[in-house]
Amino acid sequence: NAVGHYISPFHDIPLQTDAEKKRGIPTKKGRSHDNNLHHMVVEVPRWTNAKMEIATSEPLNPIKQDMKRDKPRYVANVFPHKGYIWNYGALPQTWEDPNHRSKHTGCCGDNDPIDVCEIGSKVLSRGEVVPVKILGILALLDQGETDWKLIAINANDPEAHKFHDIDDVEKFKPGYLEATIHWLKFYKVPEGKPQNCFFYDGKFKDKAFALDVIKSTHDCWKALHMKTCDAGPINCTNSQVHDSPFRCTQEEARAMVESVSPASPRIESDGEEQVWHFLGK
Amino acid sequence: NAVGHYISPFHDIPLQTDAEKKRGIPTKKGRSHDNNLHHMVVEVPRWTNAKMEIATSEPLNPIKQDMKRDKPRYVANVFPHKGYIWNYGALPQTWEDPNHRSKHTGCCGDNDPIDVCEIGSKVLSRGEVVPVKILGILALLDQGETDWKLIAINANDPEAHKFHDIDDVEKFKPGYLEATIHWLKFYKVPEGKPQNCFFYDGKFKDKAFALDVIKSTHDCWKALHMKTCDAGPINCTNSQVHDSPFRCTQEEARAMVESVSPASPRIESDGEEQVWHFLGK
Ligand SMILES: [Mg+2]
Ligand SMILES: [Mg+2]
Repeated sequence: NAVGHYISPFHDIPLQTDAEKKRGIPTKKGRSHDNNLHHMVVEVPRWTNAKMEIATSEPLNPIKQDMKRDKPRYVANVFPHKGYIWNYGALPQTWEDPNHRSKHTGCCGDNDPIDVCEIGSKVLSRGEVVPVKILGILALLDQGETDWKLIAINANDPEAHKFHDIDDVEKFKPGYLEATIHWLKFYKVPEGKPQNCFFYDGKFKDKAFALDVIKSTHDCWKALHMKTCDAGPINCTNSQVHDSPFRCTQEEARAMVESVSPASPRIESDGEEQVWHFLGK
Repeated sequence: NAVGHYISPFHDIPLQTDAEKKRGIPTKKGRSHDNNLHHMVVEVPRWTNAKMEIATSEPLNPIKQDMKRDKPRYVANVFPHKGYIWNYGALPQTWEDPNHRSKHTGCCGDNDPIDVCEIGSKVLSRGEVVPVKILGILALLDQGETDWKLIAINANDPEAHKFHDIDDVEKFKPGYLEATIHWLKFYKVPEGKPQNCFFYDGKFKDKAFALDVIKSTHDCWKALHMKTCDAGPINCTNSQVHDSPFRCTQEEARAMVESVSPASPRIESDGEEQVWHFLGK
């Protein structure tokens, strides 16, 4: 973090920004009325393919590439898309509890922090933490689990002031929501998996709905630290969460980071991520 | 080239491959009947943005980045596209003569070798020379000039055997030709230029038509070397073209390459190529 402490991107970054927590106190022109500024941890920069994600079961939860049969995983390029079509990541201090049925979908969570598709103009960097404005949400059904996808925009984007709710996305970035549906529906098909389905006929829900889902996933995350739910393989070690029974000291955090074996030699991909898949109309 | 000689990618690479020149002699299984194998010089790998091109007015015609007001030029990303959507390049030993009116379009050429959009599955490298099968052609009208765009596929692509003519593109890569029209129509709009237009209502012409246009541009290139046309700023220096009055020795070619000032410090782009432009429906 800013003062040089080792932290977990899953547990130690506040869900909301300082400005947000001091809601009502104007901070930057045009921002004082936005009551939805959240932190986003960037896992996958736009147009890249490596499936990088917060490793929820490792101490301090580093961002690592998902592995599949000992090979690093890349998402396929489904025409006309190249890699991920947004900056993709997660909101810290949220958790989609696999034992908690959503009141909206009736399905359980996917055991990860809630996902974010950031639609701003800038390509962000892996590991970057940015303030985002929440605009809406899509409910993906992935193998029986609810996998929410938030739609948000970098609050520092030059056009961020134009975006207030989900309808502004189609207004100012026509085609982007439709492409989002297409991308999420088909991205696993080249791997031999079925198309994904959506709740609500694939309709995006608005900002108010999204904020409600975020609150629910934040409550599930809090329950983890209160030990009032089954954490399963989740590693809750953190260095900044007040009152968390899993909190460690900076010395312990440093020792954990230093004890990790150096990065294994980079396994080259077999070039699959360079192929463009044409799935038909 | 393969024997270590300095060559010009514009003049010194044969338009057709050896296999093609010995037409009728089977070379590789399944290829002997393809009478349209041509060499392609790759200028821009798929999904990249830098506008790299054969410098037609410099000795030995290196591939260089186009400059615009002292800044290296990048093509804009027009949603849903990222960079060039094909491996893009040119056929050697062809020239669209700016003083020669096309019998097809009635417009003059754009002073460059003929352009190729290579639709294979592999991302090719800048400067790579690959054998391609010609499948069809599109006639773009760019500021009053004819700017032909050949559609071709890398003959070494695993699926090359399926592609014989333009209709196979829609059959096996649905949406690609439509995306090609969309890309070429809008790619200069973010720079403040008008949409491009097409001859023939934007319909692609077939392989036979394409081969005829290639022949015509090859004839124009030959006329350059016979000094029977106005070469304008074109630099015809070459090291391999028999009977060309512009042929130089290997010693001269080497001296030319060595006399070029070392690459100037790379001018960083201002990030424009990272922006995604949404132009509306
Ligand atoms: Mg998820
Ligand atoms: Mg051209």
